[in-house]
Amino acid sequence: MPTAIDPSASWKERSDAKKASVLNGIPAEFLHPDLTHSETDRNPVLDIPSKFLSSKELSITALDAVEVISAIAQGTYTAVEVLDAFTHRAAIAHKLLNCCLEFRYQDARVEAEKQDRYFQETGKTVGPLHGLPISVKDQCRIIGTETTCGFVCNIGVPDTETCDLVRILVNAGAVIFVKTSLSIGCLWGETINNVIGRTSNPFNRSFSCGGSSGGEGALLGLHGSPLGVGTDLGGSIRSPSAYQGLWGLRPSSGRIPYYRMLNSMEGNEIVPSVVGPMSHSPHSLELFVKTVINSQPWLHDPHCQPIPWRETVFTEIVEGKPLRIGSMLWDECAFPQPPIRRAIREIEARLKAAGHEIVPWKIDQRTALELLTNAMSCDARDDVDRTMALSGEPDLQLAFSPGRKPLTLLEAWDLTMKRTDFRALVMKRWNATATDDGRGPIDAYITPVNPSVCPMHEDYKRIRYLGYTGSVNLLDFTACTIPVTFVDSQIDLADQQDGRFDAMGLPIPPPVSELDKTIRANYDPERFKGLPVAVQVVGRRLEEEKVLGIARVLHKLLEP
Amino acid sequence: MPTAIDPSASWKERSDAKKASVLNGIPAEFLHPDLTHSETDRNPVLDIPSKFLSSKELSITALDAVEVISAIAQGTYTAVEVLDAFTHRAAIAHKLLNCCLEFRYQDARVEAEKQDRYFQETGKTVGPLHGLPISVKDQCRIIGTETTCGFVCNIGVPDTETCDLVRILVNAGAVIFVKTSLSIGCLWGETINNVIGRTSNPFNRSFSCGGSSGGEGALLGLHGSPLGVGTDLGGSIRSPSAYQGLWGLRPSSGRIPYYRMLNSMEGNEIVPSVVGPMSHSPHSLELFVKTVINSQPWLHDPHCQPIPWRETVFTEIVEGKPLRIGSMLWDECAFPQPPIRRAIREIEARLKAAGHEIVPWKIDQRTALELLTNAMSCDARDDVDRTMALSGEPDLQLAFSPGRKPLTLLEAWDLTMKRTDFRALVMKRWNATATDDGRGPIDAYITPVNPSVCPMHEDYKRIRYLGYTGSVNLLDFTACTIPVTFVDSQIDLADQQDGRFDAMGLPIPPPVSELDKTIRANYDPERFKGLPVAVQVVGRRLEEEKVLGIARVLHKLLEP
Repeated sequence: MPTAIDPSASWKERSDAKKASVLNGIPAEFLHPDLTHSETDRNPVLDIPSKFLSSKELSITALDAVEVISAIAQGTYTAVEVLDAFTHRAAIAHKLLNCCLEFRYQDARVEAEKQDRYFQETGKTVGPLHGLPISVKDQCRIIGTETTCGFVCNIGVPDTETCDLVRILVNAGAVIFVKTSLSIGCLWGETINNVIGRTSNPFNRSFSCGGSSGGEGALLGLHGSPLGVGTDLGGSIRSPSAYQGLWGLRPSSGRIPYYRMLNSMEGNEIVPSVVGPMSHSPHSLELFVKTVINSQPWLHDPHCQPIPWRETVFTEIVEGKPLRIGSMLWDECAFPQPPIRRAIREIEARLKAAGHEIVPWKIDQRTALELLTNAMSCDARDDVDRTMALSGEPDLQLAFSPGRKPLTLLEAWDLTMKRTDFRALVMKRWNATATDDGRGPIDAYITPVNPSVCPMHEDYKRIRYLGYTGSVNLLDFTACTIPVTFVDSQIDLADQQDGRFDAMGLPIPPPVSELDKTIRANYDPERFKGLPVAVQVVGRRLEEEKVLGIARVLHKLLEP
Repeated sequence: MPTAIDPSASWKERSDAKKASVLNGIPAEFLHPDLTHSETDRNPVLDIPSKFLSSKELSITALDAVEVISAIAQGTYTAVEVLDAFTHRAAIAHKLLNCCLEFRYQDARVEAEKQDRYFQETGKTVGPLHGLPISVKDQCRIIGTETTCGFVCNIGVPDTETCDLVRILVNAGAVIFVKTSLSIGCLWGETINNVIGRTSNPFNRSFSCGGSSGGEGALLGLHGSPLGVGTDLGGSIRSPSAYQGLWGLRPSSGRIPYYRMLNSMEGNEIVPSVVGPMSHSPHSLELFVKTVINSQPWLHDPHCQPIPWRETVFTEIVEGKPLRIGSMLWDECAFPQPPIRRAIREIEARLKAAGHEIVPWKIDQRTALELLTNAMSCDARDDVDRTMALSGEPDLQLAFSPGRKPLTLLEAWDLTMKRTDFRALVMKRWNATATDDGRGPIDAYITPVNPSVCPMHEDYKRIRYLGYTGSVNLLDFTACTIPVTFVDSQIDLADQQDGRFDAMGLPIPPPVSELDKTIRANYDPERFKGLPVAVQVVGRRLEEEKVLGIARVLHKLLEP
C-alpha cells in the first residue's frame, strides 16, 4: 500500500514514513523483530531464513520459477502457500538487507486466492505463470502502488496506471508481490537512495549488492523471490546478477516491453535502458521471455519489435549444435581479478571439451565507454537534479557528470551518429570472424561482467569500470550472466604485487592505468571468499533465443 | 562523374558547373538539343520519348522492373541494351523535366558489359536484380560520385564510400545508372534546390513533381527508369509517387538499410527518415524489398531489424484471405479534392465487391502533424543553415521553421515521449477495431496521400498539408501508394462554392480552416485533367509483407 504521508512533508519525513510503510505491508507473522540490517557484517546471511521458515516454506523457496509453477500446476502447493512462503522469506531478506520498497501482500493474496479457486474449480491454470510470485524493480508501475524510481518525490503518490509488462505478467497468472530498491534514477551501480538507504549483499553484507537493480539482486540472492524484473542501462541487471550468483538477461531494446515504466532521462534514446528477468536458472529466464513475447507486446508498446519467439534457433543450440564462441578475457583497459579469470578459463575449457570452438575476440571498450558515458550524462544531470529538487532530497555525490554542460541538440545528434558508427564497426568485425573454410561468424562471446568480483560498500567509486557491461548497452547486444563459481581463497590467490605475474608466476599484462591498478589491488582472497563469480555471454542484437540457448548449454556444462 | 570545379568557387559557379556536368555524363547520341525544360507548359510530355527512341528502346522502357529482369534472364535483351534504352529515355526526361543530378553512364556501362559476359559464359545471372538499371535519390553514396543531398557545398566532392543499400543492390546485379534530384536536405515537398533548380511533372509541367524524392517521381513518371530509390520523412516517397501515378513503398524504419546514406539533421531519431522503392508495379516493389531483406541487412546496418521476408503473410493475402480494411476519407482537417474522394470510394467498392470488409477509421492527424512538425524543426534549421552556409547558397524561403528556437535536450526528450504516447494511443485504437464476434483488428487502412491531387508550381506553399502522409511517419507505419485513376474533368467536377455540397448536390463537411478552404478551392477540373490520382494503404509498423500483399490485391482489383 502507498505511504500515507502529505507530499509537502520534508524529504526526511517522507523517507521515514516510507521505511515504516514497507514494514507495514508485511504480515505480522513474517516480521522477526530481532533481524536487522548491517552494512559491516561479513558473515553470509544465506542460512538465516532456515531458522525462521517452516520446512514447507523452505522447500517452496528452494524452487526456481519453473519448478514453482509446475508444483502449483500439479497441486503440490497452492498459489497462496507459495505467495506466503516467498513473502515470509522476502520479509527476512528485507530486514537483513534493506532491499524492498513495497510489500503488496494484501492485493497479492487476493489474486493468489482467486487463482487457487480457479484451479480448484476447473483443474486448469490461468496461464503459463499461474501462481508465480514475481518481484519487480521499483520502476514498474502498478495502479495503486507507489513507483519511486529511487526518488523521494514519488513517496506518497499512488500510481494511476499499470505498465504493459506488469499487465502481461499478471494476465499470464503471475502475482506481483514485492517492489524492490534501486539507485536514484537507476543511474548508479550500487543500490542506495534517500528513499530507504543502502542495500547489502547476502553473501557478505559488507559488500554491495550492485545496482541499479540491486534490490532484486539482494532479494533473489537470498531466495526471497523466484523471479525478478530488473532494468539495464549500463549493467544494472548484470552486475547485481553477477554479485549474487544469478542468471540475469539483458535483452536487446524492443524485445521486452518497457512502455509506461518510470525512469529518469525519459525520452533519451541514444542508448536505451532495457528491462529483463533475473532468476536462479536459465530455464526461468526462458519462461519469462517466452511468455512475454508470446503475448505479442509489439501490438501495444511502440518500441517493441514484431519478432515472435524463435523456437528453432533455441532448440538447435540446446540440442547440441556446435558453437563458435568468442572470448575476451580482458579489454586492455581493466584486467579482471583472479577468480574471474578462472571462471573465463573454466568456461573455455568446458566448451572446448564439449566440441565447441573458442575464438579470440576484442572490442574497443574504451571508445564504447566514452560514448556511453556521454550518452548517460548528456543532460549534465539536468533531469535528475530537477526531480530531486521536487522533494529537496540531498545529493548523495554519485558522480553522474560533475562539471559538464548539457549537450545541444546538434551535439546530441553527433553523439548519436558516433554511436551508430561504433555499432557498425563492431558488426563488421563480428562478421569478419567467419573463416575462409566456411565456418560462419561467432555465435556469441564470453567476457567478464565486471573486472571486480564485487565492490565492498564505499569501494565502488574507486573501482567503478563499466566497460564490460556498458559496451553491450552501447551496442544493444543481448547478454546473459552465467554464474560460474565462488571465490575460493585457496585457489584464487592474489597476483604478485608488481602486477606482472599472477600467483603461479605466470605473466599477466602490466596495468595500463591507475584504475586498472586499483581494481587489481582491490582483490583480497580472504575478504572476498565465498562471493559468487560470474561471466556473461553476449550475442548480437535481438538474439535472445540464441543467448538463452547458450546459457542452457553452459548451465549443463557447469553442472558438478 | 563528379563535377570538375574548385570547391572554393562561388555557389553560382558550382551550380552552373554541376548543370553542365550532368549533361556531360550523357552519351552524345542520347542528347537531343531541341528538348528543353519548361515550368509553364501544360501539355503532357509523356509521348515525347516515342519521337526519339527506337522501337526496341520503347519496348524495353515499357517494361516494369520484374519484366526487365526476366527479359534479360531469357536472353531477349542484354544488360547493355537495357541500360542504353533507359539512359536514353532518362536523358530525354532530364532535358524535359530537369530531374537528374548525375548520369553514371560510363561506369554503369562497364558493369552491364561484365554482367552480359558472365551471362553469356555461364548462362546464369549474377543475382536477382541481374542487369536492372536503378535510379537513386541523391542521398545514396556511391564511391566516386557526388552526393549532394540538395546542397551546393557537396558539388565537386567525390564520395569516398558506398552506402549499404547500394552495395546490396549492386551485389544482386543492379546497375545504378542515374542519381536524381531532391529538395534541399530532403525537407520540402517540392523538388527545388540551388544545385540544379526546379523539377517538373511529366503529366503537366506547370505542376510539381512533388518532393523530396521528386527527381525519382519525374524520371519514373516518364519511364526513364524501371525502379527508383527514394526516402520518406513526411511523405517524400509517397507524394511524388502519387503525383506521377507510381507505386511507392514507405517501409517502416529498420527494414531497408539507410546506413551511410547522406541526410540533413542526421542523428535526429525522433521521427526517422526511411528509404524505399518507387516503381510501376507492386511486383517491382516486392522484388526490391525481398532482395534487400534476403541479404540480411541487419548484419551490417545497426538500425535494421533482424526480420526475414515473411512469405506466408504475403502469400496468404495474395491468395485471397478476406481482409478487414479501415477507411479514412478525411481527417477533419483537410478535405480531399473530388478525384481523391472518387478514388477512395472506388477502392472501397472494389474491395467490398471482392468480399472484403470496410471499417470506418480515424486518426487524430492534427496532433500527429504538430508532433511531426516539431520533430522536423526541432533544431530550428540549425543544421540546414550551417550546411547551406558552407557554400553561401541562397535561402529559397522554404519555411522549415521560421522564428523558432532550437529545443533543449530535455525539450527534445519530452517531444520524444509525446511521440511514443501518440503511437501507443493509435495502436490501442487499432487493436480496438477487433469485433466481439471474433473478427480481428483491421489489416490496414486506406486514406488519401494528400488532400490535393497535385500542386501547381508556386501553389505548394499555400496548400501544403502533411497530415495524411506525416501521421504515417510519426507512427512509423508501413504505407504504399496505390495509383487508382486520372483526373477526368467530365467526372471529377468541382464542389459547389459554399463548400457544403459537392457537384451532385450531396452534402460534404464544411471547411474547418482557411487551409482546408484553400485546398478545396485550389481544385480545377480543367487545369487538373489527366493528372494521376492515388491513395495509400497503410499497415502497422514493420508490416511490409502485409502491405505489399494488399497492394497486389488492389492492383488486381483495379485492372480495367
